[in-house]
Amino acid sequence: VKIAVVGGGSTYTPELVHGLAALGVGEVALYDADPERLEIVGGFTKRMAPALSISLHRGRGAALAGADFVIVQIRVGGQAARLADERLGLEHGLIGQETTGVGGLAKALRTIPVLLDIAERTAQLAPNALLINFTNPVSIVTEALLKQARVKAIGLCNIPISQRMEIAAELGVRPEEVELDSVGLNHLSFVRRVLVRGADVLPEIIELIAKSGKKPANLPDLDFPLELIRHLAMIPSGYLRYYFLARETVEEQRAEPRLRAEEVMAIERELLAYYADRTKTEKPASLSKRGGAFYSRAALEIIEAVAHDRGDRLVVDVRNGSAVKELPEDACVEVPCFVNAHGATPVPQRALEPEIRGLIQHVKAYEELAVRAALSRSRRDLYLALVAHPLVESASIAEKISDVLVTRLGW
Amino acid sequence: VKIAVVGGGSTYTPELVHGLAALGVGEVALYDADPERLEIVGGFTKRMAPALSISLHRGRGAALAGADFVIVQIRVGGQAARLADERLGLEHGLIGQETTGVGGLAKALRTIPVLLDIAERTAQLAPNALLINFTNPVSIVTEALLKQARVKAIGLCNIPISQRMEIAAELGVRPEEVELDSVGLNHLSFVRRVLVRGADVLPEIIELIAKSGKKPANLPDLDFPLELIRHLAMIPSGYLRYYFLARETVEEQRAEPRLRAEEVMAIERELLAYYADRTKTEKPASLSKRGGAFYSRAALEIIEAVAHDRGDRLVVDVRNGSAVKELPEDACVEVPCFVNAHGATPVPQRALEPEIRGLIQHVKAYEELAVRAALSRSRRDLYLALVAHPLVESASIAEKISDVLVTRLGW
Amino acid sequence: VKIAVVGGGSTYTPELVHGLAALGVGEVALYDADPERLEIVGGFTKRMAPALSISLHRGRGAALAGADFVIVQIRVGGQAARLADERLGLEHGLIGQETTGVGGLAKALRTIPVLLDIAERTAQLAPNALLINFTNPVSIVTEALLKQARVKAIGLCNIPISQRMEIAAELGVRPEEVELDSVGLNHLSFVRRVLVRGADVLPEIIELIAKSGKKPANLPDLDFPLELIRHLAMIPSGYLRYYFLARETVEEQRAEPRLRAEEVMAIERELLAYYADRTKTEKPASLSKRGGAFYSRAALEIIEAVAHDRGDRLVVDVRNGSAVKELPEDACVEVPCFVNAHGATPVPQRALEPEIRGLIQHVKAYEELAVRAALSRSRRDLYLALVAHPLVESASIAEKISDVLVTRLGW
Amino acid sequence: VKIAVVGGGSTYTPELVHGLAALGVGEVALYDADPERLEIVGGFTKRMAPALSISLHRGRGAALAGADFVIVQIRVGGQAARLADERLGLEHGLIGQETTGVGGLAKALRTIPVLLDIAERTAQLAPNALLINFTNPVSIVTEALLKQARVKAIGLCNIPISQRMEIAAELGVRPEEVELDSVGLNHLSFVRRVLVRGADVLPEIIELIAKSGKKPANLPDLDFPLELIRHLAMIPSGYLRYYFLARETVEEQRAEPRLRAEEVMAIERELLAYYADRTKTEKPASLSKRGGAFYSRAALEIIEAVAHDRGDRLVVDVRNGSAVKELPEDACVEVPCFVNAHGATPVPQRALEPEIRGLIQHVKAYEELAVRAALSRSRRDLYLALVAHPLVESASIAEKISDVLVTRLGW
Repeated sequence: VKIAVVGGGSTYTPELVHGLAALGVGEVALYDADPERLEIVGGFTKRMAPALSISLHRGRGAALAGADFVIVQIRVGGQAARLADERLGLEHGLIGQETTGVGGLAKALRTIPVLLDIAERTAQLAPNALLINFTNPVSIVTEALLKQARVKAIGLCNIPISQRMEIAAELGVRPEEVELDSVGLNHLSFVRRVLVRGADVLPEIIELIAKSGKKPANLPDLDFPLELIRHLAMIPSGYLRYYFLARETVEEQRAEPRLRAEEVMAIERELLAYYADRTKTEKPASLSKRGGAFYSRAALEIIEAVAHDRGDRLVVDVRNGSAVKELPEDACVEVPCFVNAHGATPVPQRALEPEIRGLIQHVKAYEELAVRAALSRSRRDLYLALVAHPLVESASIAEKISDVLVTRLGW
Repeated sequence: VKIAVVGGGSTYTPELVHGLAALGVGEVALYDADPERLEIVGGFTKRMAPALSISLHRGRGAALAGADFVIVQIRVGGQAARLADERLGLEHGLIGQETTGVGGLAKALRTIPVLLDIAERTAQLAPNALLINFTNPVSIVTEALLKQARVKAIGLCNIPISQRMEIAAELGVRPEEVELDSVGLNHLSFVRRVLVRGADVLPEIIELIAKSGKKPANLPDLDFPLELIRHLAMIPSGYLRYYFLARETVEEQRAEPRLRAEEVMAIERELLAYYADRTKTEKPASLSKRGGAFYSRAALEIIEAVAHDRGDRLVVDVRNGSAVKELPEDACVEVPCFVNAHGATPVPQRALEPEIRGLIQHVKAYEELAVRAALSRSRRDLYLALVAHPLVESASIAEKISDVLVTRLGW
Repeated sequence: VKIAVVGGGSTYTPELVHGLAALGVGEVALYDADPERLEIVGGFTKRMAPALSISLHRGRGAALAGADFVIVQIRVGGQAARLADERLGLEHGLIGQETTGVGGLAKALRTIPVLLDIAERTAQLAPNALLINFTNPVSIVTEALLKQARVKAIGLCNIPISQRMEIAAELGVRPEEVELDSVGLNHLSFVRRVLVRGADVLPEIIELIAKSGKKPANLPDLDFPLELIRHLAMIPSGYLRYYFLARETVEEQRAEPRLRAEEVMAIERELLAYYADRTKTEKPASLSKRGGAFYSRAALEIIEAVAHDRGDRLVVDVRNGSAVKELPEDACVEVPCFVNAHGATPVPQRALEPEIRGLIQHVKAYEELAVRAALSRSRRDLYLALVAHPLVESASIAEKISDVLVTRLGW
Repeated sequence: VKIAVVGGGSTYTPELVHGLAALGVGEVALYDADPERLEIVGGFTKRMAPALSISLHRGRGAALAGADFVIVQIRVGGQAARLADERLGLEHGLIGQETTGVGGLAKALRTIPVLLDIAERTAQLAPNALLINFTNPVSIVTEALLKQARVKAIGLCNIPISQRMEIAAELGVRPEEVELDSVGLNHLSFVRRVLVRGADVLPEIIELIAKSGKKPANLPDLDFPLELIRHLAMIPSGYLRYYFLARETVEEQRAEPRLRAEEVMAIERELLAYYADRTKTEKPASLSKRGGAFYSRAALEIIEAVAHDRGDRLVVDVRNGSAVKELPEDACVEVPCFVNAHGATPVPQRALEPEIRGLIQHVKAYEELAVRAALSRSRRDLYLALVAHPLVESASIAEKISDVLVTRLGW
């Protein structure tokens, strides 16, 4: 099995390679547009996993050629662009965030053309490969891939697997014994059932929270008002704070001394310094601060299910088809899928409750417009995507942000 | 033909009776829970339309018995309750409005039980009657009727007919020559085509606006940024300002010296004084300030289409069925319908564009929850309806407003 | 209003013109490919309706140019082709019939190219015209028009109106008081409700039949076993005998001294002799033997609804859309429609009962294949259409009939 | 793992036990209503598989209690009833067959009440068990279970697995390398793709057949005219001969010296004599004549997928949901499913081609009526099921057969 990693110079890469080494995979080809980072990070992975066949590539072609899996984890414009995205929202009284709101739209518009180009090269050089997209905003970017690319593609996020791990820890059972019924979009999903050996224990978890008045220690992302959790009786993705507590999260961000992009820049400097140190051969402890828990495990689960043609049930981002009846057939959704050699088949979902249906549909319509704008590169589509976003409180703000983004993107 | 009017003491009633008189309808039975207003308004209508058979009723039964049409235009709690609703939103930094947002929810919860009771009495005393609901919020209240009542019911608003009249005036053609393709919910609708003798002239209207940079004089409700109208290329209901300009409309309201409820109270005092003056026999000029232009004409169009079993094409509020595929079958929608003796059959609509689909779906999900809360009288359902509203920016606000409403409603 | 009649030399034409004369329509342009018949029939209509402006055309262009309605009632290949079609079925132990089974398929394949050509000429010369198709098999031929032609088109048959007239006669009420809920395909429809002033009287009709053990005198086409009518509790189109009594109808046909085509040939000779007699100025009594009762009235109802932009409820053949959920959206169905200046909008139908659903779906799938074969002119598609027909009992027969038809059609 | 077998005295049972022994399953409990057959067959299985824990039960309760899987393979009325069913069809000029046509209906009506009773006992005594139904007609009988029973149930037939084995043999690859895309109903299915390592090789198989003019040696059930296979370009279930060659199969049956029931009676006598012989300890060679190739393997595949919570892709009979859009959601369909501890999730299917859609929909509507008749025990529903069957050529025949069946069933 050959695995190509586009964005191989990411500070996450050692995490991924660590997992691949444990799996005993055949060959790992790292490519990055930034030769220096490729050298530093790639060099470190070679020291860390000497038994693994790792190659570093400054040209995409050789990395992609003949790959069975292409993992894409790019950041077009780097952390500097992210910082600009986060500021853009805050300057207009909106959330400043990498995937949610105007920051996510800016990132999607910048990223989709690059990603479609990677997909096209993959189609030429590794036509049977499965493209696994980790690049944010996963939902929009993967929808663009599913609608436009000629390769098989799956979107992947570490949140579903993290939820499974955390819930298992909370319940004191092994992760393999837990199956989550999660539905929605990436970063906009709700766990509606927690199956342990076939029985749904979610009502008990909710009741426990309601009685104790405390959130479970192992579920740090369950940072919502108790009344919301009790009445919703589901476990929302942590990113839903930006919607359910829209006013508060903007205020929180304003009160913070520095933005997340600035934090990540500091962490990355530290990590790169560590990787560059030729005496280091072990994964650094500080990698966990970077976010992305279980990121490596999520990728490995897919690779194994596909490589061994097993119908494993995994929560990934795929074309909806008829799985969620309340969403368009060609929308990208995040639901449990059976994953085998032929790809990921989404499990049909029961009807969406009205308490979550409206928000999911609203954001999905925005995402559809975001994809349309990325493909048309038209100011009109960009403006309409902004207007359609539930967190953009005014068409006048949409107008101002459109001006900024059209200039930044060079449209 | 017998027409019963529930809420016959409304200051609008003379407008309605004026139209019925012109039509030469058989019998009009006015009922109102407030005997004084019934006397004042009813007495005036008798002077105004002496040729019409008008009866005043302090008991509902005699008014409803054997009616062919039951027009319901009630205001549970009067303008005082409306004032409290408007203040409720503003106190939490939200819009303070009779139909949109928390004010609309409060009104719906207060109104639905009363309306369902009227519907049940109608089912007993006039089982073949058509109930025409003018009571706001029309969308929520009519959905409750369609789901629960045993009588035929249609929701009606004066906005669709006003749009038709205004657009005809703008185009310089007769209203009969104009057909609007309008889709959405009450107070949340979009005109997607303006047909004049079969040809869609909306693109020309939009182009004219775009070129001149001015909104048409005859379309006062088209009070949106030019870029929005140009890019949307549809005519939104004026109420959509609360969504497309959410931030601005809240600020506008705060800047105003008095609330709409206070204004209406003043207008109503003036109108009631006029009606009470036994020398007056003509419809007062100031009635137009009350709002509700073409309100009478809208009702007459339905009555005539039904009474003469004509398939007239009218925009009304009905059960969706399969007309708008992106909304639930049992949702109340506002679309063109063919109206004849058997009721209103909605015209199948083409797919909703993503730029309007998300918002319509989001609000409809909230409305479904509002109906559920009105029927269950449960705090949980009320809270979830608030959380699901796109304009309620925080679950914490929802919690506080739930506290207030549960007390006010005496749940 | 200008009405063009393609196939104006049909022996039916005087019936149609008689109705148009009563209506006081502007101008009637008759075209026929057979100049002799055009002269005979057209000449007679001029004597019969001297007040009407009737023109005869040997060229299609002048007849079509500027028409508001184009009525198409052609018979490609004449009665000789029909005779061959009827024999084709009987030779293989199948029904020999003009619209049902292999005869209908042969006629459709022969007719569709000619009809599409007429539609294209209409699109060029009378782009706003409504094409009213009377040509059999209406269901298949109209589906081809709806899928391929650039003009507005409606399919029309005299059976729905005949059912309404006959049922009204049976009930002793005026036809205007009766509304039929009929669903299905042309020649494959079921009346599921008979509304008289809003109340469904079908259960009473069925109970009367069940009790008396006799079929109503005014419903001659209700020629089915009593048990079938009682248990189905619907009124099937008379053509359904070919399905519900498949074995018996083949035997009946074999026992008859001559085929329907031969009968019609004799009637037509008689009619043409009558029309050619320059002393005749009255519609001949024998025209009723030709079939097609109320044929003229059916056409006039459509013309009036469209010309006066009335939403009349008429049972016609149109694109399904979402009216019958169990059939494809682009299928041609025969259901009640609201007909006005913008065309025919089908009324959404309640779910099909399983007792009729399967047969309707089966025949519709065959019809879809028939249209495909007419467009592709491929032997494969023709063969698959035959195999898919519920009355073609064997793929071997389908093979033999394919051989014959491919030769006859000159494919 | 405990496996209960209801109908444990079936002559097939040694085949099944042979497989279970190889699997090393925990406990097998055989129950049969016929104590003599239970003794003979059960006794033999104990000799054949001495290492397996096998228990024989004259009472259902002890066999079912605590079972993980309940395999149901009953024949209500025995081969005598089957003989009567087969004769019933032939006497009326229809096919005489155990699962297709009137014979299948008779068997379903006789079997469903017994099966629902078994399901109810299972719900009480083994609430978490999976009921695997092998009892014919699998499609109708399983639909009744899915609609009415309180236990999880899957229908199973040996045809899908046999097709996989035979196609693998023909292609010279291992069965694990072949994946069939099969769609439809039990005994009414079509293989639309044959995937070998992800690539569809069905077009090549069809082309080979078309060129050579010969059917593949390893696909004995592909007994259809070459033109049909070539044009359909799918592999139909062998049972589809009764539809595609309806006329011929009736004639073939008439020409045969004895009916299938009579043949099976002779085979069973032989097998029971063998099983009763206490010297025998090996599965008899003649078992293969009984039909049901790979029957044991089919059951084991399900048991393993469920027991080990693997998402294996197996073709089984399940509730449709949204898998086949052209069929009702609550219909029983036979499609590929992912089978794991939570049951079988059907894989969404692409649109049905019109050449197979109509027949599948027609038969499914009949099956829905058959289930309805079994539950209502009403003559009306029975009659309508017969009328709705595509092979019942006349409502008069349906009437006569209804008379016979109502008497036989003691309704």
